[in-house]
Amino acid sequence: MGKYDTLVELLLEVVKEGGEIKEKDNSIPVGISNRHIHLSQSDADVLFGAGYTLTKTKDLSQPGQYACQETLTICGPKGAIEKVRILGPVRRESQIEILLADCFKLGITAPVRLSGDLEGTPGITLVGPKGSILLTKGLIIAQRHIHMSLADAKHFCVTDGEEVTIQTTGLRGGTYTNVMVRANDNSSLECHLDTEEANAMCLKSTSKIKIVK
Amino acid sequence: MGKYDTLVELLLEVVKEGGEIKEKDNSIPVGISNRHIHLSQSDADVLFGAGYTLTKTKDLSQPGQYACQETLTICGPKGAIEKVRILGPVRRESQIEILLADCFKLGITAPVRLSGDLEGTPGITLVGPKGSILLTKGLIIAQRHIHMSLADAKHFCVTDGEEVTIQTTGLRGGTYTNVMVRANDNSSLECHLDTEEANAMCLKSTSKIKIVK
Repeated sequence: MGKYDTLVELLLEVVKEGGEIKEKDNSIPVGISNRHIHLSQSDADVLFGAGYTLTKTKDLSQPGQYACQETLTICGPKGAIEKVRILGPVRRESQIEILLADCFKLGITAPVRLSGDLEGTPGITLVGPKGSILLTKGLIIAQRHIHMSLADAKHFCVTDGEEVTIQTTGLRGGTYTNVMVRANDNSSLECHLDTEEANAMCLKSTSKIKIVK
Repeated sequence: MGKYDTLVELLLEVVKEGGEIKEKDNSIPVGISNRHIHLSQSDADVLFGAGYTLTKTKDLSQPGQYACQETLTICGPKGAIEKVRILGPVRRESQIEILLADCFKLGITAPVRLSGDLEGTPGITLVGPKGSILLTKGLIIAQRHIHMSLADAKHFCVTDGEEVTIQTTGLRGGTYTNVMVRANDNSSLECHLDTEEANAMCLKSTSKIKIVK
């Protein structure tokens, strides 16, 4: 394709998209997670009352995921943390994702795990308006990961389940290893870090990172 | 030198050092800083009373530096943080080192700076038992750095003021760039990170890092 053809193609693309040329680079948006809770329906029943339905307040970037109005207090042997946000929809098992700093406050050592990998994890007490429950497992520090579609995975030359290294720049720049690729056709491109990981690199919700493998 | 000579030399070394063979590797111990305060004497006078002397509770790893019994409340336009530890001895200027997460709580944006580089930094209100003071500058997020002696600098092939990259391993491994070398003959080898930087890499006070340049 000659340069005039390329020019015409780009101009048509700009016209179609209302004036914006999409940046076809390799940067990946960052999603920053604070501590949060995923609840099973049976645990929601105990904490909020039988048959309770969580109240959506905001859609999250991953399709079908949302923040809820409801919060809970989480309690460990050494201390409690109030107003921990619940994310919906309900899941098969409850899962509590905390920061490493929270472990000191709660007095519980949580492992770094991928979402859903709860075997052998410690439990914690959840306190809600209608009841409390002592979970026997489910407390984790989330392993950093990148959600993406299968098309994105092809674009970045990675596969679902692969661990990659990501890079950021600036005065607090650096790399994080072991960032798990979670690729499927119901995901939106986003690298999930927790607030400590984001703050250590001065990353904001508008920041972007790159895969360096 | 033959193997028997080497063996004799090593045995003599062990005897001299009381049984320990020193590990001559390139690992550097980590020192983890939570938020803390360095006070000037004139600010200490306002907060604790004229001529007040801070009470040492624990020596820190850097020669002459110590943790004090005294704490202060720091207050920004959006919120306050209680029981922030003072480190001694007093300095020429007061300096408040916070975490990036604290900026949201306090409602003040602090820059990432090296200790002592306070020009153009924001102030904050300090509240003590005998008075309070609104500093006009001094609030920073500490830039990561490595204290070392001049002999250490020679060993690591770095110079005072050089910025290096450090590396850690494990599930939360990675690298941090822009780690400032602070080499002089009154320093003990230690890489200083704040709690968010340490937690993001799962580093503890017993951890070690390496310079990768």
